Amino acid sequence: MAIWLDAAAPDFEERFKALLSTKREVSADVGTVVDAIIDDVRERGDTALAAYSKRFDEVDFDEPATPMKVSEGEVAQAFSEVDPKVVEALKVAEARIRSHHARQLPENDFYKDEIGVGLGHRWTAVEAVGLYVPGGTASYPSSVLMNAVPASVAGVERIVMVVPAMKGKVNPAVLAAAQIAGVSEIYRIGGAQAVAALAHGTESIKPVSKIVGPGNAYVAAAKRAVFGTVGIDMIAGPSEVLIIADGENNPDWIAADLLAQAEHDTAAQSILITTDKSLGKAVEEAVERQLKTLPRGEIAGASWRDYGAIITVPDIETAMPLANRIAPEHLELAVDDPDALIPKVRNAGAIFAGHYTPEAIGDYVGGSNHVLPTARSARFSSGLTVLDFMKRTSILRLGPEQLNRLAPPAIELAECEGLGAHARSVSIRLNRKE
Amino acid sequence: MAIWLDAAAPDFEERFKALLSTKREVSADVGTVVDAIIDDVRERGDTALAAYSKRFDEVDFDEPATPMKVSEGEVAQAFSEVDPKVVEALKVAEARIRSHHARQLPENDFYKDEIGVGLGHRWTAVEAVGLYVPGGTASYPSSVLMNAVPASVAGVERIVMVVPAMKGKVNPAVLAAAQIAGVSEIYRIGGAQAVAALAHGTESIKPVSKIVGPGNAYVAAAKRAVFGTVGIDMIAGPSEVLIIADGENNPDWIAADLLAQAEHDTAAQSILITTDKSLGKAVEEAVERQLKTLPRGEIAGASWRDYGAIITVPDIETAMPLANRIAPEHLELAVDDPDALIPKVRNAGAIFAGHYTPEAIGDYVGGSNHVLPTARSARFSSGLTVLDFMKRTSILRLGPEQLNRLAPPAIELAECEGLGAHARSVSIRLNRKE
Repeated sequence: MAIWLDAAAPDFEERFKALLSTKREVSADVGTVVDAIIDDVRERGDTALAAYSKRFDEVDFDEPATPMKVSEGEVAQAFSEVDPKVVEALKVAEARIRSHHARQLPENDFYKDEIGVGLGHRWTAVEAVGLYVPGGTASYPSSVLMNAVPASVAGVERIVMVVPAMKGKVNPAVLAAAQIAGVSEIYRIGGAQAVAALAHGTESIKPVSKIVGPGNAYVAAAKRAVFGTVGIDMIAGPSEVLIIADGENNPDWIAADLLAQAEHDTAAQSILITTDKSLGKAVEEAVERQLKTLPRGEIAGASWRDYGAIITVPDIETAMPLANRIAPEHLELAVDDPDALIPKVRNAGAIFAGHYTPEAIGDYVGGSNHVLPTARSARFSSGLTVLDFMKRTSILRLGPEQLNRLAPPAIELAECEGLGAHARSVSIRLNRKE
Repeated sequence: MAIWLDAAAPDFEERFKALLSTKREVSADVGTVVDAIIDDVRERGDTALAAYSKRFDEVDFDEPATPMKVSEGEVAQAFSEVDPKVVEALKVAEARIRSHHARQLPENDFYKDEIGVGLGHRWTAVEAVGLYVPGGTASYPSSVLMNAVPASVAGVERIVMVVPAMKGKVNPAVLAAAQIAGVSEIYRIGGAQAVAALAHGTESIKPVSKIVGPGNAYVAAAKRAVFGTVGIDMIAGPSEVLIIADGENNPDWIAADLLAQAEHDTAAQSILITTDKSLGKAVEEAVERQLKTLPRGEIAGASWRDYGAIITVPDIETAMPLANRIAPEHLELAVDDPDALIPKVRNAGAIFAGHYTPEAIGDYVGGSNHVLPTARSARFSSGLTVLDFMKRTSILRLGPEQLNRLAPPAIELAECEGLGAHARSVSIRLNRKE
């Protein structure tokens, strides 16, 4: 049973605040362990990687079948192990993701302003990117596509994937997805040690400049620790969906969408805001009914019970500021005219508009990216795009005339800041006496 | 005396690698102290801020002249304390920065693809941003402009500045810059405690969603710690300039530019790559000569002695891959035809093109941003732009026809990933039996 909140009730603000501040994930304090692993990999390189992989993943890189680097043969073999329909689906997804992300390629710019100063910028791709893929049940081929394709579109030359392989076995669908998306190198390593290897390099693995992809608490702490040496994407937290629905909805559809979020993780959160209390009741019943036949019913049930919420509002407009305070990763607008609500969305990772856009479509084949800001971080960050794999160099160009014109305020500010050499580097070009 | 490297020498690769990996900054291990301060501010709020400010900045918020929040009166007073020429220069700089950054405002997008799926995105401003300004000699009014103006252009409603005030006094030029740039609130606090207050809020300070601006090791560690709760900009490291010069240069100009970088900090780095050994010699002599008359000669001299370098190359093309490996924050192209070299620049924060664009112009009045990636991070990150104060919400919209078309691959992938509720949220809309 999810909790119920009524936006018209006197205690609503208090209860809504409590909902917002619910801590859904205890971040384990793994900093010390992770720092030691990173230091060890920097010092012992491949030897450290082999030791950790033996200990944590029960894999021996000395065995011919499971070397650290995944061979082309193993990738080819993976295609024969994956259902051809899945391979076909991965190709459909890849093509749609690629074509949508190609629109994100930025333009260079250069112009002269009214006094003739040239200003501009050029975009270039990051040269090498590391992609972390979790092991076990969270080893999702779709996430490989969502991270690797934007990097490929950006023009990244080396896309290096790492994936922990319990007893040496990598999920073949993950290998197929990597090949389809254009990953260039794959290593059978995981955990903080894999992040350290990507950031600092070892004898076998050349370092990368940026690391992306989700992982457990150790991976997250390692990414935080190497941030600065390399770039990182956001630290992914537990996932969430918010559905805004008027009375004209099929409760079974809404329930299915809430559960699709909840089945990810017991720390996932599914929230429904509706103008219609009876719809809320019907959705709640449908959730209970659907839970019974769900393979991951236990996980989804725990998430719904612990963090699920149904909020009733007097009208749909009232829902929007609440949605912006929740700042959900996924926002479904289950109304006939979503276009009327979209301009009112301030904080959300992605909007799924109308009755026929279940969030799961966006997870796989919509074409947009499913790597989105979690845990209220849509207040300040965005989903993954091609720009995350590029960087921008600004360009400034003055001639003698522009320098003469801008020298006085530049010298004034340099002197006010006590930076005499700054002032001189400008004045010396004016042939002035210092 | 800076070190000399010759790209044609047999030991060059080894010596160049050593130059690249020189550690210029010892990052103090302040994590534990910072974590305790953050916890304390979360717990005691304003009381903790007052206590730390008394201890570290010798300021008493109970004194009427130095409340925690800087009053409008104090800001007005600051304008009367600052040289009117400096105020004028700040206004010139602000207008140029604003007009250049206005070009960075991104466009929304929405289109239908060939099967009628609607895809797009909308950009919105971060609602509240915190701007950290260091105290003491590093309290630069130009940095206030460079951080606050892009936020203002982006449409950020609350721009909250914090600045430590030794004995209560804030640099009046910093206050004037804040007012000119559109800062909305100013607090007389600094250090890890100020970062904690911005991230988590106190009784007097409403929390922000993103924190930008440079600071010492404590501020950097605090930003790293609150990353996730709020967004942060990059962690600024020691600054650097690389000048690529052919033989046709005035050695005094080049020397002035090298020293303008070196005077920032003993950990700053100034490198010259030249095709002309005799120019290198002349620059070296000019550096020694100019150092004698420089107010911050001691700092600049230490930086040049410890980290300065002159690299000779057989031709200008050889310089470019070296520049990309250095990935400098600032790259000056001191040649007659910089346009021929610009397309070969892969990793650099900003390019200053031609003989009349000393880097110092970009620090103040060029119009481009002076917050740039340091310490080789131009390999994966970019200078500050308006986009750093905005976020992007993606939009996906399918009708029944598009859902029917994309359902099979979506269901295939959901099932392959073991996510039954994902599959059901799609199939249920097709009125299929589960």
